[in-house]
Amino acid sequence: MSRALSELAALVGGDIEGDASLQIRGVAVLETAGEGQLSFYGNARYKHVLEASKAAAVLVGKDAPPRQGKTYVRVKNPHLAFARISQAFHPPKRHAPGIASGANVHPEATVDAQATVMAGATVARGATVGPRAVLYPGVFVGEGARVGADTVLSSNVTICDGCVVGARCLFHPSVVIGADGFGFALDLEKPEHVKIPQAGIVRVEDDVEIGACSCVDRATVGETVIGRGTKIDNLVQVGHNCTVGPLSILCAQVGLSGTTELGTGVMMGGQSGSAGHLKIGDLAKVGAQSGVMSDVEGGAQVIGSPVQPQRDWLRSMALLARLPDLAQKVKELEKQLAALQKGTPP
Amino acid sequence: MSRALSELAALVGGDIEGDASLQIRGVAVLETAGEGQLSFYGNARYKHVLEASKAAAVLVGKDAPPRQGKTYVRVKNPHLAFARISQAFHPPKRHAPGIASGANVHPEATVDAQATVMAGATVARGATVGPRAVLYPGVFVGEGARVGADTVLSSNVTICDGCVVGARCLFHPSVVIGADGFGFALDLEKPEHVKIPQAGIVRVEDDVEIGACSCVDRATVGETVIGRGTKIDNLVQVGHNCTVGPLSILCAQVGLSGTTELGTGVMMGGQSGSAGHLKIGDLAKVGAQSGVMSDVEGGAQVIGSPVQPQRDWLRSMALLARLPDLAQKVKELEKQLAALQKGTPP
Amino acid sequence: MSRALSELAALVGGDIEGDASLQIRGVAVLETAGEGQLSFYGNARYKHVLEASKAAAVLVGKDAPPRQGKTYVRVKNPHLAFARISQAFHPPKRHAPGIASGANVHPEATVDAQATVMAGATVARGATVGPRAVLYPGVFVGEGARVGADTVLSSNVTICDGCVVGARCLFHPSVVIGADGFGFALDLEKPEHVKIPQAGIVRVEDDVEIGACSCVDRATVGETVIGRGTKIDNLVQVGHNCTVGPLSILCAQVGLSGTTELGTGVMMGGQSGSAGHLKIGDLAKVGAQSGVMSDVEGGAQVIGSPVQPQRDWLRSMALLARLPDLAQKVKELEKQLAALQKGTPP
Repeated sequence: MSRALSELAALVGGDIEGDASLQIRGVAVLETAGEGQLSFYGNARYKHVLEASKAAAVLVGKDAPPRQGKTYVRVKNPHLAFARISQAFHPPKRHAPGIASGANVHPEATVDAQATVMAGATVARGATVGPRAVLYPGVFVGEGARVGADTVLSSNVTICDGCVVGARCLFHPSVVIGADGFGFALDLEKPEHVKIPQAGIVRVEDDVEIGACSCVDRATVGETVIGRGTKIDNLVQVGHNCTVGPLSILCAQVGLSGTTELGTGVMMGGQSGSAGHLKIGDLAKVGAQSGVMSDVEGGAQVIGSPVQPQRDWLRSMALLARLPDLAQKVKELEKQLAALQKGTPP
Repeated sequence: MSRALSELAALVGGDIEGDASLQIRGVAVLETAGEGQLSFYGNARYKHVLEASKAAAVLVGKDAPPRQGKTYVRVKNPHLAFARISQAFHPPKRHAPGIASGANVHPEATVDAQATVMAGATVARGATVGPRAVLYPGVFVGEGARVGADTVLSSNVTICDGCVVGARCLFHPSVVIGADGFGFALDLEKPEHVKIPQAGIVRVEDDVEIGACSCVDRATVGETVIGRGTKIDNLVQVGHNCTVGPLSILCAQVGLSGTTELGTGVMMGGQSGSAGHLKIGDLAKVGAQSGVMSDVEGGAQVIGSPVQPQRDWLRSMALLARLPDLAQKVKELEKQLAALQKGTPP
Repeated sequence: MSRALSELAALVGGDIEGDASLQIRGVAVLETAGEGQLSFYGNARYKHVLEASKAAAVLVGKDAPPRQGKTYVRVKNPHLAFARISQAFHPPKRHAPGIASGANVHPEATVDAQATVMAGATVARGATVGPRAVLYPGVFVGEGARVGADTVLSSNVTICDGCVVGARCLFHPSVVIGADGFGFALDLEKPEHVKIPQAGIVRVEDDVEIGACSCVDRATVGETVIGRGTKIDNLVQVGHNCTVGPLSILCAQVGLSGTTELGTGVMMGGQSGSAGHLKIGDLAKVGAQSGVMSDVEGGAQVIGSPVQPQRDWLRSMALLARLPDLAQKVKELEKQLAALQKGTPP
């Protein structure tokens, strides 16, 4: 299962400096990599780790220190090259196509002959499952829902009625797509919260990955959209009528209230959230645990609850830590001023 | 499937101003509503949206601007009227009653003849499922648990042993009712965390809706209670021995520690949390991402972590943003005072 | 089902003061305990509750007030003694061993004859299930995964391929062990986020409890480890390559980014989080809703976002609430100083 370093270098358009005849049997991070393993170096902060590493070969960028006996593969983007080479060592698992005897597929559902539906998975009436899609046990694909080609739904994933999932998506266990959005009108006279029917759907475009136990709610009317190539971590909440991405990143436990609109390549840090009915522009970065309460411009880096530009927040946090000092100074000033006013030396 | 506007107006006790002969085929928000669609206008902030809207007819309150050619249905509460009319267009899905052949129903369970138990759902010994209740695939109803009439448990919902769910509830996929509360006593000598048995149950009253992947823990002793008509969003945590509602609203990712007591009509914003053993009074509103660390009075509006009255918090946040300015002023004062003390002009 | 108080006292090495002949039929908290029930008193704050309690007998420590007619069982640690006695009244549920006819067990899986695999549970190829382990409906144990002796996996729990779970663990419904860690490299030219294969596993040691809908991601390379005796509440996220515990406590909705290292006996409060690649030392306590952005020393008590030592945070929060007052004082000082500078009396 080992591969020639020259083959791997060619895969990522890299130039070998050192022993081009090496055989590589796997990848690892610098700290643990050893004989036969390829690693990568992408951040000058870890220069000492690079120097101590026992990796057989290292993917490096232009700015790497002299190679000192190590074998380097010089590339434009070492992290990216590492990802592609790691994929070569870990090709996606293949599943025998077919519908297992313990699966519940409705006679009026359409399952491609090359799809895999495992025992304990359900495909409801009118649903469609594309070629090479894989449905693990406990998956529920609701009425009229559509699952695209090469998409993998891990155990206990739910795709509610009418929702649409694109090609090459990967949903981890217990993801829920298309549960009702959270919308009620208060009837004070009864009193009761009257449900506003959630009649829209969720549309997940191609190449989206969604982490375990994350939830994307269906639209009240129309569509909640997860754009192409967006990656969502575990335990994330996307409210009804949101639009996310393409190519956005939502870290674990992020929460988006209804009708939040995220542009292209937005990054939201873990446990951050947004109020509803607002926009976060292309390439904006929202820090962990932040609270977005109004629009964020494209390219902005914000943090805090409510969010501020990152630079301001850092200054505020530093000053907050020094508040006792500031309060002390004010007390001192008051004393000195009082002394001056009385004409007595302080 | 269209309905006469006059019929819809009658349904909500509204007065038509304009073309009473209209036929309505559905509802939509003002922005997207078009021919044959009914919308609503409930907030003066959206007056320009109302004016630009192509909705065939609009539910409006007393304060709506002049109708300028549009057809209005004047009602007391446009949002509420919209909810009820939307329900008329989206009646709940009906399911054929019966126990599917792939369902696992214990011989000593009691399932009403009008209930629907789909393939892949489990009803354990001694459990009861009421008339017209619907259990989707992957649902688990534990020993002795009770599910009320007309309650819908979506795919992969768990109702643990002995828990009680009322009538007309709606639980979205992967909800967990009655997992053990989180209680341990530390034995320093072993050392180990010794589990305190969680011997109580969860009781969910009628008309409760719970969002996907939300969890309500069973009581240590006694009951954790979700009161009548309470609505809970996705990924919410309710700890053991909490009492919530009736008619409370918990937004997504809220977390209540053990023995939190929420009154009637409490609203908790997204990602907010409470420490345990405290009370949040009737109609209190807790802002998003807030942390409640002590009792909150009925009717209070609080926000922040730890929470403050909303007005104070707004002031604190504004001042926090201006801290650099304040620090600068203090520095300036110190300089001027020093100059004065030396007798030199500043 | 009642037990002699003397027997219970012996179980926890306690000394009876009062009526040693009592029969006890259960345990309860002081507020609700009545005839035949044993309770505990562990905190002087609840002295009035002790005095008002109708418990038949009370577990107390050395510092308890005079017993005034009540029967006491004096022990070193009343809370711990209560846990052990409560366990005596609530022994773990027993399940008939065997593989139910509706279970999906791969012919090349190894299920101990004393294990219980319920209908609707899946054990994939090469997986191992130990003696007296219990798999509820909807459980998925992936290829090559291992489940230890006496471990209980509640409904809809997922153990992904290759992950290892120790003995005497208890996983509540919809727990997900071993979903992919969240790792991508950005290819700006396509553009796309390129997945970094997550080729490691999760190893959960013995005596670990994990709450409903909590997720522990597999390592990129190597292992994510949940150490012996660690207890994790609901809706918690543990990122790839973390090491937690032994004996740590993660409260509900905690989130650990990748490669966080928690020592022994660390406690993290509800909704707190950590950035990745950092260490939280033995016995450290992190407050609720805190954000850990750099290493925390062993034994430290920290809180806030970003965290500060608890004492500093309390002072900062108090001063933050008094900021309007401080700003007012500075304004006043400026006025008085200006007056002094002009030579006019303030």
